[in-house]
Amino acid sequence: MSQTASVIAPKRALISVSDKTGIVDFAKALSQRGVSLISTGGTFRLLREHNIEVTEVSAVTQFPEMMDGRVKTLHPLIHGGILGRRGVDDAIMQEHGIDGIDLVIVNLYPFAQTIANPECTLADAIENIDIGGPTMVRSAAKNHKDVAIVVNSDRYSSLIEQWDQEGGLNAETRFSLAREAFEHTAAYDGMIANYLGSVPATTSADSVPEKSEFPSTYNSQFVLKDVMRYGENPHQKAAFYVERQVAEAGISTITTLQGKALSYNNIADTDAALECVKSFAEPACVIVKHANPCGVATGANLTEAYQRAFSVDPTSAFGGIIAFNRELDADTAETIIGKQFVEVIIAPSISKGAAEVAAQKPNVRLLACGEWDSSVPAHDFKRVNGGLLVQDRDLGMITADDLKIVTKAKPTDAQIDDLLFAWKVAKFVKSNAIVYAKNGITTGIGAGQMSRVYSAVIAGIKARDEGIDIVGSAMASEAFLPFRDGLDQAAEMGVSCVIQPGGSMRDDEVIAAADEHGIAMVFTGMRHFRH
Amino acid sequence: MSQTASVIAPKRALISVSDKTGIVDFAKALSQRGVSLISTGGTFRLLREHNIEVTEVSAVTQFPEMMDGRVKTLHPLIHGGILGRRGVDDAIMQEHGIDGIDLVIVNLYPFAQTIANPECTLADAIENIDIGGPTMVRSAAKNHKDVAIVVNSDRYSSLIEQWDQEGGLNAETRFSLAREAFEHTAAYDGMIANYLGSVPATTSADSVPEKSEFPSTYNSQFVLKDVMRYGENPHQKAAFYVERQVAEAGISTITTLQGKALSYNNIADTDAALECVKSFAEPACVIVKHANPCGVATGANLTEAYQRAFSVDPTSAFGGIIAFNRELDADTAETIIGKQFVEVIIAPSISKGAAEVAAQKPNVRLLACGEWDSSVPAHDFKRVNGGLLVQDRDLGMITADDLKIVTKAKPTDAQIDDLLFAWKVAKFVKSNAIVYAKNGITTGIGAGQMSRVYSAVIAGIKARDEGIDIVGSAMASEAFLPFRDGLDQAAEMGVSCVIQPGGSMRDDEVIAAADEHGIAMVFTGMRHFRH
Repeated sequence: MSQTASVIAPKRALISVSDKTGIVDFAKALSQRGVSLISTGGTFRLLREHNIEVTEVSAVTQFPEMMDGRVKTLHPLIHGGILGRRGVDDAIMQEHGIDGIDLVIVNLYPFAQTIANPECTLADAIENIDIGGPTMVRSAAKNHKDVAIVVNSDRYSSLIEQWDQEGGLNAETRFSLAREAFEHTAAYDGMIANYLGSVPATTSADSVPEKSEFPSTYNSQFVLKDVMRYGENPHQKAAFYVERQVAEAGISTITTLQGKALSYNNIADTDAALECVKSFAEPACVIVKHANPCGVATGANLTEAYQRAFSVDPTSAFGGIIAFNRELDADTAETIIGKQFVEVIIAPSISKGAAEVAAQKPNVRLLACGEWDSSVPAHDFKRVNGGLLVQDRDLGMITADDLKIVTKAKPTDAQIDDLLFAWKVAKFVKSNAIVYAKNGITTGIGAGQMSRVYSAVIAGIKARDEGIDIVGSAMASEAFLPFRDGLDQAAEMGVSCVIQPGGSMRDDEVIAAADEHGIAMVFTGMRHFRH
Repeated sequence: MSQTASVIAPKRALISVSDKTGIVDFAKALSQRGVSLISTGGTFRLLREHNIEVTEVSAVTQFPEMMDGRVKTLHPLIHGGILGRRGVDDAIMQEHGIDGIDLVIVNLYPFAQTIANPECTLADAIENIDIGGPTMVRSAAKNHKDVAIVVNSDRYSSLIEQWDQEGGLNAETRFSLAREAFEHTAAYDGMIANYLGSVPATTSADSVPEKSEFPSTYNSQFVLKDVMRYGENPHQKAAFYVERQVAEAGISTITTLQGKALSYNNIADTDAALECVKSFAEPACVIVKHANPCGVATGANLTEAYQRAFSVDPTSAFGGIIAFNRELDADTAETIIGKQFVEVIIAPSISKGAAEVAAQKPNVRLLACGEWDSSVPAHDFKRVNGGLLVQDRDLGMITADDLKIVTKAKPTDAQIDDLLFAWKVAKFVKSNAIVYAKNGITTGIGAGQMSRVYSAVIAGIKARDEGIDIVGSAMASEAFLPFRDGLDQAAEMGVSCVIQPGGSMRDDEVIAAADEHGIAMVFTGMRHFRH
């Protein structure tokens, strides 16, 4: 059947919306196109106020609105009108006085908003669960062959446009509206299930529930942003999904100014680089390769920050991901392009000049993510076979005030700066992580070893190979040093101060070793495993 | 209000189930307790066949079953009966002849099963979307203050038990039934949204859709298994969720025979160890620390496999996770306990003798996951800020037949075995990964470096420190060697053969280097990045 043949110009619409954006204009436009309108409650009153001709649902069903509106639309004269198959059920519809409803405009009051109120009792939440609304949405979506269902006010103007161009709504549009409809009800019931699953069954109806963070089932919905050419490897298919309302500027809010499509590994690495660079208040640059920072530095400006970050490991920086915490300027862009092959450059914004410079290398992916505020709590996932580990995103961070000095030697102010700098980087290095840093620049990064001491070893070797001097650096270990060997090794490399969580059974030994070497050591009391 | 005061003994039940397990006995039990039954369709006929007194829904509504059953229960005499607030709506119910329904037993035909049929057309799928069922489930769940909703046949016997003990169903039970109900409808609409979101909008109703793998929204539901003390770090809260029907034996199907609760890191590491050890047909042992294998070996039996795996890196093995691909026997358990501190031991099954031995160390977590068949395709996730990367699980694996020999030197059969062994391990080592192996045992593992050559370096240093001889080993690189330096270095360490994907711009150089050194090299054509 061709699309044209299946264009439907609805004659009768049912409207009941929580989000009233644009509904008056849309209803008027429908009226003008000869559509008769049925409505309920607040929507009915709103349309009447605007002198739009509209019939109340109760006038259709001949059943009063009762039970505070709990059952108003759950009636065969409504659902028969929506679900009746045109051309199949016409006789039975006529016999029972059922008039077809071929356009349903319904959206649901966001349940998340109801329960976000800190005073929302269990009874309030339950009362806000809509029964009639989702049923109309689902009925209409099921019967999209004959009925159009609109749950999204963004659609109104394009639907009227199509109507005027094609004489109605075509099958493809009705199908995609039905898809949105089930996405709407799935998200709605997912939120209800998450809520009820986090409320203890013993909660009394009139109290505000003590919700657990982890509901009995974990329901989520993500929205497709891109299907990628492949995943982490070419034999794996992949796609990138984002939250419906992304709460924080980051990899999920990017605008691509130029360059090829982002790959799976690009996205993962860009996220790591960006989240790390957000840790710094000063102009900063983070270069990431294979999920780990390979060079991190601050500077008086971004150009300096980049040059310093690049200088410590130009080998790894080749083909890397570069993130900044300020608007990218033309100078910095020029410096990068002149120095290295780069896959991705990301910053909160990109100056016009920087964009012009980057245009010389059109394959470089140039991304702006917008300015970020403070970090937003969220759940982090780790997939395992047949299951999912869910945890709070690691937003823990200490300040100078939280540091506990445990050695005879006290760190100087400059050392405190170096220690905190190294610590911020260590949080984003895969465990076991050892980071050396001096004057706002990493002098060595040891990542991902099964034994902590080898992370220190590899960081040292790497620094030596690049001609970087570790002497006088601060050393950060993202988890406690279990034995004194870590300290002895640090001393051998010329490390002047150490930051680590503390908490090992052998802390005394480790502190004694630091004292022997005259090294200042501070404990954070907070660990940052990242695997 | 006390629970006792709010116990409800339902008088009138509506039954309409797709899963008919136990429904006849449950209906009889209800009948015997004085409950009058209403039903529809197949359930009605089944109950009648068993001489259970039951009224048809159409007799209640005085509205015929029409439109092939599309609207039979969408009627105020049904939904008023379910949604009416007892004590509030009694007068209006009486006025309109609405009899209360205080027990609803409804479950939905699994939509996943409908669309699993390879011949399922779009029209078939749409026709199978239930409208009346979810509406009754949702109505009853909303009104759980006065109504009990049962969606799960596993509940029947315990409900009758409670009824007989307490004279009805208490508020706590009704609440948890309502929670299950919304979990049921959320999963149901999530499946529909995933389906419609993967069907092109241009699909004609009578054709079998060409579904895309990645729907326009990604809807998922996981079931809570455990809330952990904390997550990857103590300041992060965490929980472990599993799929509703886990398809493959693994970390999500474990039985804990003894030991403390598993931590977040235990679960992640156990998953890595187990999935790696599944790669081997021979008796094998994988020891994991910080998400990476630190020792992997096969052997004539598990004891030998363990001893060999342990021997190559006893330092990292301390506090590790040990996985086996055979039933754990007493000898092996004894050997482990005698040699090292271990966090977790996992195997498909644990012999009685092994369990007795392990009991000497009651803190060791001893896990049986059951026997696995071949791996089941699934989606892997990587969480990023505000979004989710979704990809196919990496189930790619080559065999000897897939290897392309690219050097003058041809690998011997023994070398082929070593190459494939090293390759299987490299797949589970964080990128960049270099694995040395000889005679079914890893002789060096270099994990997680930003520059590939340093993975080789760290593997070599580690081997030297443990007194392991790399000479004559096979070397695996999970991604291509970009330059000849990797080959030169391998030659220096005495590597005799190399396995890698190939595909670098400089393959010729790398092959020439191998030829210079007389090293046999094979290409897999498949990469295994793992970050």
